[in-house]
Amino acid sequence: MSDRIQGIFTPNIVPLDERSRINEAELRRYVDWLIERGVHGLYPNGSTGEFVRFTAEERRRIVEIMADQTRGRVPILAGAAEANTGETIRACEYYAGLNVRAVAIVAPFYYRLSPEGVYAYFKEIADHSPVDITLYNIPMFASPIDVPTVQRLAAECPRVVAIKDSSGDVPHMMRMISAVRPERPDFSFLTGWEAALLPMLIIGCDGGTNATSGIVPEVTRRLYDLTRDQKLDEARDLQYRLLRLFDAMLYSAEFPEGFRVALNLRGIHTGPGRQPQSSVQQQSLSQLKEQLYQLMTEEGWAADLPDDDQINRIVTRVLQDLQRSGW
Amino acid sequence: MSDRIQGIFTPNIVPLDERSRINEAELRRYVDWLIERGVHGLYPNGSTGEFVRFTAEERRRIVEIMADQTRGRVPILAGAAEANTGETIRACEYYAGLNVRAVAIVAPFYYRLSPEGVYAYFKEIADHSPVDITLYNIPMFASPIDVPTVQRLAAECPRVVAIKDSSGDVPHMMRMISAVRPERPDFSFLTGWEAALLPMLIIGCDGGTNATSGIVPEVTRRLYDLTRDQKLDEARDLQYRLLRLFDAMLYSAEFPEGFRVALNLRGIHTGPGRQPQSSVQQQSLSQLKEQLYQLMTEEGWAADLPDDDQINRIVTRVLQDLQRSGW
Amino acid sequence: MSDRIQGIFTPNIVPLDERSRINEAELRRYVDWLIERGVHGLYPNGSTGEFVRFTAEERRRIVEIMADQTRGRVPILAGAAEANTGETIRACEYYAGLNVRAVAIVAPFYYRLSPEGVYAYFKEIADHSPVDITLYNIPMFASPIDVPTVQRLAAECPRVVAIKDSSGDVPHMMRMISAVRPERPDFSFLTGWEAALLPMLIIGCDGGTNATSGIVPEVTRRLYDLTRDQKLDEARDLQYRLLRLFDAMLYSAEFPEGFRVALNLRGIHTGPGRQPQSSVQQQSLSQLKEQLYQLMTEEGWAADLPDDDQINRIVTRVLQDLQRSGW
Amino acid sequence: MSDRIQGIFTPNIVPLDERSRINEAELRRYVDWLIERGVHGLYPNGSTGEFVRFTAEERRRIVEIMADQTRGRVPILAGAAEANTGETIRACEYYAGLNVRAVAIVAPFYYRLSPEGVYAYFKEIADHSPVDITLYNIPMFASPIDVPTVQRLAAECPRVVAIKDSSGDVPHMMRMISAVRPERPDFSFLTGWEAALLPMLIIGCDGGTNATSGIVPEVTRRLYDLTRDQKLDEARDLQYRLLRLFDAMLYSAEFPEGFRVALNLRGIHTGPGRQPQSSVQQQSLSQLKEQLYQLMTEEGWAADLPDDDQINRIVTRVLQDLQRSGW
Repeated sequence: MSDRIQGIFTPNIVPLDERSRINEAELRRYVDWLIERGVHGLYPNGSTGEFVRFTAEERRRIVEIMADQTRGRVPILAGAAEANTGETIRACEYYAGLNVRAVAIVAPFYYRLSPEGVYAYFKEIADHSPVDITLYNIPMFASPIDVPTVQRLAAECPRVVAIKDSSGDVPHMMRMISAVRPERPDFSFLTGWEAALLPMLIIGCDGGTNATSGIVPEVTRRLYDLTRDQKLDEARDLQYRLLRLFDAMLYSAEFPEGFRVALNLRGIHTGPGRQPQSSVQQQSLSQLKEQLYQLMTEEGWAADLPDDDQINRIVTRVLQDLQRSGW
Repeated sequence: MSDRIQGIFTPNIVPLDERSRINEAELRRYVDWLIERGVHGLYPNGSTGEFVRFTAEERRRIVEIMADQTRGRVPILAGAAEANTGETIRACEYYAGLNVRAVAIVAPFYYRLSPEGVYAYFKEIADHSPVDITLYNIPMFASPIDVPTVQRLAAECPRVVAIKDSSGDVPHMMRMISAVRPERPDFSFLTGWEAALLPMLIIGCDGGTNATSGIVPEVTRRLYDLTRDQKLDEARDLQYRLLRLFDAMLYSAEFPEGFRVALNLRGIHTGPGRQPQSSVQQQSLSQLKEQLYQLMTEEGWAADLPDDDQINRIVTRVLQDLQRSGW
Repeated sequence: MSDRIQGIFTPNIVPLDERSRINEAELRRYVDWLIERGVHGLYPNGSTGEFVRFTAEERRRIVEIMADQTRGRVPILAGAAEANTGETIRACEYYAGLNVRAVAIVAPFYYRLSPEGVYAYFKEIADHSPVDITLYNIPMFASPIDVPTVQRLAAECPRVVAIKDSSGDVPHMMRMISAVRPERPDFSFLTGWEAALLPMLIIGCDGGTNATSGIVPEVTRRLYDLTRDQKLDEARDLQYRLLRLFDAMLYSAEFPEGFRVALNLRGIHTGPGRQPQSSVQQQSLSQLKEQLYQLMTEEGWAADLPDDDQINRIVTRVLQDLQRSGW
Repeated sequence: MSDRIQGIFTPNIVPLDERSRINEAELRRYVDWLIERGVHGLYPNGSTGEFVRFTAEERRRIVEIMADQTRGRVPILAGAAEANTGETIRACEYYAGLNVRAVAIVAPFYYRLSPEGVYAYFKEIADHSPVDITLYNIPMFASPIDVPTVQRLAAECPRVVAIKDSSGDVPHMMRMISAVRPERPDFSFLTGWEAALLPMLIIGCDGGTNATSGIVPEVTRRLYDLTRDQKLDEARDLQYRLLRLFDAMLYSAEFPEGFRVALNLRGIHTGPGRQPQSSVQQQSLSQLKEQLYQLMTEEGWAADLPDDDQINRIVTRVLQDLQRSGW
């Protein structure tokens, strides 16, 4: 039980340069920045990492850079979903070679598969993967992985060691834990919905893979620690404040643009994303930046932000980056 | 703050006789049975109470009987939704005369109204009701009451003192509490989704209106007390066990048939409901009865069940009732 | 086959007086107005008729008035859904006494029933009704009636003679016709979605029950006739123009407020509806009135509208009505 | 108007060999087979073509083979959606070099984008593509392209010349035609939902891109011709029969497995697909094969099927293929 995957794993945004290529130097700096602020692990090629907007080669390169920079300080869950099971198995082999702790594989998307189809897909991969696998359930984007399917895969596939669930549905998480934990005490349950991190941890989750931990890693980590220590009043207060930030980043823009804006405010230069933004969207992102800056300053989450002069220089630089890239 | 509506309010099934009329004697016995087992309040004419399957006259009669039997031992929330705002206001007046603590009014159903429409509906009622009002949000059955609408009604209508939310979405509940509590510390938040009762209480809910409390009132009450006392390990264990019962009652049959079956197992003779059941459904209910009997016995929740001989007589009697009524 | 229910049946809005009571005189005038303009039948207590916003007594009174005024000139489909099967059967008996052609019964709403539950509900009613029954499928508001259930009810219940389907899904209608017509050539298929009236008639529907026919009965009737006569080019053109009106009435306001506004423009004084409208909604309805007036004038569908002076007097009167009633 | 894209374009399944590689020889034979049976054009890399299950290189290779084999006999719409706008624009350039008539680009999937996001995505591509673009709206799999967005793109982007809409919603198609055709008479509307091909053509569609045309191209073509010639009775009859086949292929298996089974019955050896099938699914596909064989034989759509001996040999061969590949 002690070796269950646990803690806060950060699904990271990938910084891009002015030509929309991976900004390796900034990505390396971001990895250090996250580890220094206490996240328990890293999770490249997640939804926050916009894995579908990179090519297969880029996805490998991202994990390669991050594994190299991490040098074993924290474990890595590498998103490994590719075009089909054959390609995905080859990605598993590649990431195994980079010594990641496990891969994370989202359920088939585009087509909405039945539970039998979802089962067949993961079974095929699990039977051939040389590395542990985290199932990734995100029903708003991909085929849902229902409770009986999780139970079936956990029972049949020793390689399947965890599920990341982004539904945010607390009783659903309890149903999975009830169905799997008795037979697989080593199986880990991670929530992808930090809006419910406190209640999820209380009902038995092992941790979270939360986009917000890429923006305010100290805060997410502290919420995790407070809850684990049963300091409920402090934890509840922090959960409410984190929710405010989460909602602002999530609902004010196309995902994950709000998180990208916030990350720039913390001094990581992401460059604009690959999904074009209309002029209406760009204006709305500008407003969001103001709002997030205020919110984070109020909360004191901008504590390690540079002083005002530096901020002005940073903002100027970000704006220049954005303009250059037609953002 | 101390006078917020709080605790477990039971939305009760209405026992019917062999001609499908309200079984007043059994309803009175059921009221006593619930109060003796510790529920904090009663909630007639809720979804569990199948308010839409009774006539307007019957709905009044149900509250009348229950208020008379309760004689002030516990507060009553009376479901008061009628065909239109005028009829609903008259129902509010009637229930005020019965000294209920508040009425509960579900958002408009059949038509799915916009937030503006939901607002206008409740505003009209709140401006004319002589009794406090609990908003009832159950988006799977009725127009959703979104967070800004709750906030707006709480700000404008002193008569609106609570919301029962059956979405089961923990962050949604937190958003409502964030939006309303600062301005209205007297406003109460009740969850209608006992599958998440523990986490809901932990993030600040004041209680629940839970169908399961009509079946195992001792258990729901104990879960409430354990959580309030921050005995988290015991509370978590009980929440998991309650979830198992809840899921069996909810997902194995058309709502609320599974709860009706379980209630008969506890010795309350409900008679069959008013929604006809096909022969396929009846067989499935028979199987559910076996399953629930086993589950409740295992859990020791049938503790006050009579001995085996008595059970046989009860089962025989229930079956006779069912056959007589073509169930 | 010749005695299948066919043609355009109008689900009528119920005019209300300044105290929100049924305006009997105007309802009678509206009945005549509709029949004179060519609708094949009337359909009180439909969704357009806001049956859920009237009391059980009012619903009977509405049919009574309309049957009396119609005096057999056209057939009537009477919406007969009440709180439960017993009440609904009694309504069927009542409407049978008024010599309606058939009743129309919406699938159970509020609770979303399974196909077995929907079947059991209609079977119970059909086994006891003294009058023919039209099933009413409107999945956006009520439990869906799926194809196998329609087929099963058609096979087992001679009293079930038609379905009104408001899904607007053409292949779904074809599936129902394929499943039922071979065994029940007398069974009628009516579409409740006039946006697709032309294609529905072409693939074999017998007619429609369309709210728009309550506003521009001449136009809906003409579209029906043109399609029946296979004058496709004219029919297509008219269908596109009708769609424009339909969309304006449906999507610019809470249903059926847009239709109510338009009906007033045609000289039927509806009074405000029973669902309160916020001030934002009232402003939006004012704008809609302008838009509909322009659209209907452009189309020449205001041909029997009085001259400008009369219009001014009517508008003044309507506005007075509205103000008086707090609209 | 005469140069609008029109007719039946076939979104083809890609035959695979025993190692799950593209079976070039069979793909070439399939192209000839389709053209000989009358389809107006070809549509590689559509949903039926499982574009997401191929690598970027394979997607190019598929179009290359098909363009080479077609040699200009019919126009090609090439599915060109890649990981991001940059990659997609490069794919457009590549397909332009192969002289396709246009590319088809599905709305962004995985993430569900807002209308602004969908607009920005297509605008960016349209501004840089050297080849005409067909928008592809399939809301069950990808971000919906709403009517105002189609109108906006049609107004601003001369390169956008058509939309394929797979919603199957007839009034929605009418709304798009109303919004776009007056300003862009050259813009083409294609339905991806052959269940409604007849009504879609009648209300003004220019054609269809229909998976069923890959299985029974003669039938889909004949339905198109009959409808164009206003032979409505024959067309209606054929539409009903085609619907029966479509439903059997679509709803009895994970898409597009039912179509793959049927295609093998017509003598095109597809090999198994890349999505693994569980043993339960394989059994269900075997049953579907029987059912489809019977249906197609009854309909006479197996007219060019070889005689019984040949069928046995083919079935044996297909089964061997399937076993070999663990299907």
